[in-house]
Amino acid sequence: MYKFNKIEKLLKSAIIPIKKKELIHINQALGRFLAEDVYSRIDIPPENNSAVDGFLFKNKVLKTNIYKKFKVDSELNAGEKLKDVSLYKNIVKISTGAHIPKGFDVVIMEEDFVINEKIIYLKKKNILKWMNIRKKGEDIKKNQKVFSKGHFLKAQDIGMLSSLGINKIKVIRKIKVGILSNGNEIIEPGKNKLSHQIYDINRYTLLSLLRNNYINVLDFGIVRDNYKKIKQKLNSLKNKSDLIIISGGASSGSKDYVVKIIKEIGAINFWKVSIKPGRPFGFGMLKKNKPILILPGNPVACFVIFFLFGKKLLNFLNDNLSYKPEYYLVKSNFSMKKKIGREEFLRGKTFIKDGKMYVNKFNKQGAGILSSITWSNGLIRLKSNQSSIKKNSNLEFYPYQND
Amino acid sequence: MYKFNKIEKLLKSAIIPIKKKELIHINQALGRFLAEDVYSRIDIPPENNSAVDGFLFKNKVLKTNIYKKFKVDSELNAGEKLKDVSLYKNIVKISTGAHIPKGFDVVIMEEDFVINEKIIYLKKKNILKWMNIRKKGEDIKKNQKVFSKGHFLKAQDIGMLSSLGINKIKVIRKIKVGILSNGNEIIEPGKNKLSHQIYDINRYTLLSLLRNNYINVLDFGIVRDNYKKIKQKLNSLKNKSDLIIISGGASSGSKDYVVKIIKEIGAINFWKVSIKPGRPFGFGMLKKNKPILILPGNPVACFVIFFLFGKKLLNFLNDNLSYKPEYYLVKSNFSMKKKIGREEFLRGKTFIKDGKMYVNKFNKQGAGILSSITWSNGLIRLKSNQSSIKKNSNLEFYPYQND
Repeated sequence: MYKFNKIEKLLKSAIIPIKKKELIHINQALGRFLAEDVYSRIDIPPENNSAVDGFLFKNKVLKTNIYKKFKVDSELNAGEKLKDVSLYKNIVKISTGAHIPKGFDVVIMEEDFVINEKIIYLKKKNILKWMNIRKKGEDIKKNQKVFSKGHFLKAQDIGMLSSLGINKIKVIRKIKVGILSNGNEIIEPGKNKLSHQIYDINRYTLLSLLRNNYINVLDFGIVRDNYKKIKQKLNSLKNKSDLIIISGGASSGSKDYVVKIIKEIGAINFWKVSIKPGRPFGFGMLKKNKPILILPGNPVACFVIFFLFGKKLLNFLNDNLSYKPEYYLVKSNFSMKKKIGREEFLRGKTFIKDGKMYVNKFNKQGAGILSSITWSNGLIRLKSNQSSIKKNSNLEFYPYQND
Repeated sequence: MYKFNKIEKLLKSAIIPIKKKELIHINQALGRFLAEDVYSRIDIPPENNSAVDGFLFKNKVLKTNIYKKFKVDSELNAGEKLKDVSLYKNIVKISTGAHIPKGFDVVIMEEDFVINEKIIYLKKKNILKWMNIRKKGEDIKKNQKVFSKGHFLKAQDIGMLSSLGINKIKVIRKIKVGILSNGNEIIEPGKNKLSHQIYDINRYTLLSLLRNNYINVLDFGIVRDNYKKIKQKLNSLKNKSDLIIISGGASSGSKDYVVKIIKEIGAINFWKVSIKPGRPFGFGMLKKNKPILILPGNPVACFVIFFLFGKKLLNFLNDNLSYKPEYYLVKSNFSMKKKIGREEFLRGKTFIKDGKMYVNKFNKQGAGILSSITWSNGLIRLKSNQSSIKKNSNLEFYPYQND
């Protein structure tokens, strides 16, 4: 039985990250993994500029004017080319974002003046040099490293790339992930169901969980509990994708052929883990760098294991080896006993009361109760060495983050 | 100056949700909004079934056998049709998920027996009726309401729909959102930049933030600070999308025409709010139910305001009026003073130390510092009535949730 902490290491050491790159426009780059470090070729801001709508001064001139009355004699808007500095008289009306001509060093906000057409009277007292001026390069400096290879590009990162003037970047090529369900009992939704059959859940959940910009998802359908058919199918698929995810058929029943067949075709790296829900969960290779993730048939166990390890595996494949799921600390609103020696992941829902953050667990924690997943907003982690959970104790909470 | 809490109400009352539906396959339904309530037509599980690989008993028979030795005379796998109940002898080997024939009421796990071919000897003592049996309908009951109209469909919800046998559902039609940048200073990335120009950030960030399955994003480009051109553009766009988002040009500089023009074409519902960063932020209507969101030109303010209100607006348009962003409570790892009377949203990054969760703020909080957004993993909310933040005090933290 493999321990939780061991599995990450096993996955990491088994995976050879995909190195193939492609050059794409930043408008297509959301949710892709960078294939190269990104450096800035410019300063941001490119020049000193005004942080507010106001008036532009030379600090020296300001100090010598004891009446605090000024005549405004020019205007400078964002995006306007700077004229020869000598053409700017002492006082310039300036808009947010406009670049500061050389020699000027103070911007004072409009509301700090009494304004009478071209004549302005300064009310504010404490005037500091460089006030309301954003300095050249204060956000990003020229030649600074902005993102590292393997970085997952979020919306704000696309904005950052654009601000650097970069419209095309190299990302890891899309990875192909094939999804397969195994079982005699499962049928497609929309069809009429006999009483001993159930509709496929895992394939539809996984197809949706994998609908990311860096993945081409391939739907490999349902394969029945038939030794020959499973072997044929896995053999035929091993060159069609970078990763195969199969759910079901890995238990120890007489019709559970999946693990046996993978051992014959390739190798099983691990099988059976001390995680609840999570049995039977395994991982193997159909051939060199053709990993196969074997998820439990129970829909809750399938979801939980994919959430814990599937995402990691996908990040490792994209050379993002530092990936860790985000978690928060919350207080338990329940108490329970627990078996020592395995990690447990409960379906939980957070709430706030009297300035504290609590979590409830779903009342039915069975591996088949899909409502527990649709009801909850994340997983509660109970660690291997815990034997009981007391009310109000601190728990790690892993939000699903998929909306 | 509009207060934070007032804005949500103003947005909600101004928006007429889109009611048009379309029938789509569940494989296309991830990230769409349900246009109808969903009820289950079946029980889940459809029949009593085994939660484990084990042996199936009648509790009565078990009680009368004092030797605890049994002969296994049949086998029942998941997905097998049940034979006439009378054909099953007392002891049946059963696999996980297999349906329980009438009259049987106990499943005992394999590991609780000594197994010698067909003869099994029971080691376990406390045997309870219905042990290891999942009851028909324990997850979902026939005719139960599973999802409500306006529900946002996540991956696990697609799995749930599939498990109900539903392959097609009615969702709100995709909404069209047009993005526009305003300013003389901004140019497209990839082009050569003059010293007084900056690359467009907001349009690229927003195009990425809006790349959701329920949205068709339309890129309306950059419009210059020219009264005629802006008016022409807004007039030409008002029938082309369900929502327009424009950034920049809403300050009070002499070249800031956006608010003036919207007043002429339609109406401004509110403008200027007591949120930092967030000025100038406004909202109006180009005509009946053609809302326009006016975001600040500063990239941080633009991102923060979209995060706080843009997502709400999009949910309201999809009839999901109960939408609230998720937040967590964390402890401040900094102290600072704050102006009373406005909400502030700092860019923060969480970390865990000694079993407590803390947040750091980015060292430069200026509205132009885009690094603060790419560095942080969420926003820290400082409430209107706070005048200072002490170290270790509780703060609301809103994770970006976009990876």
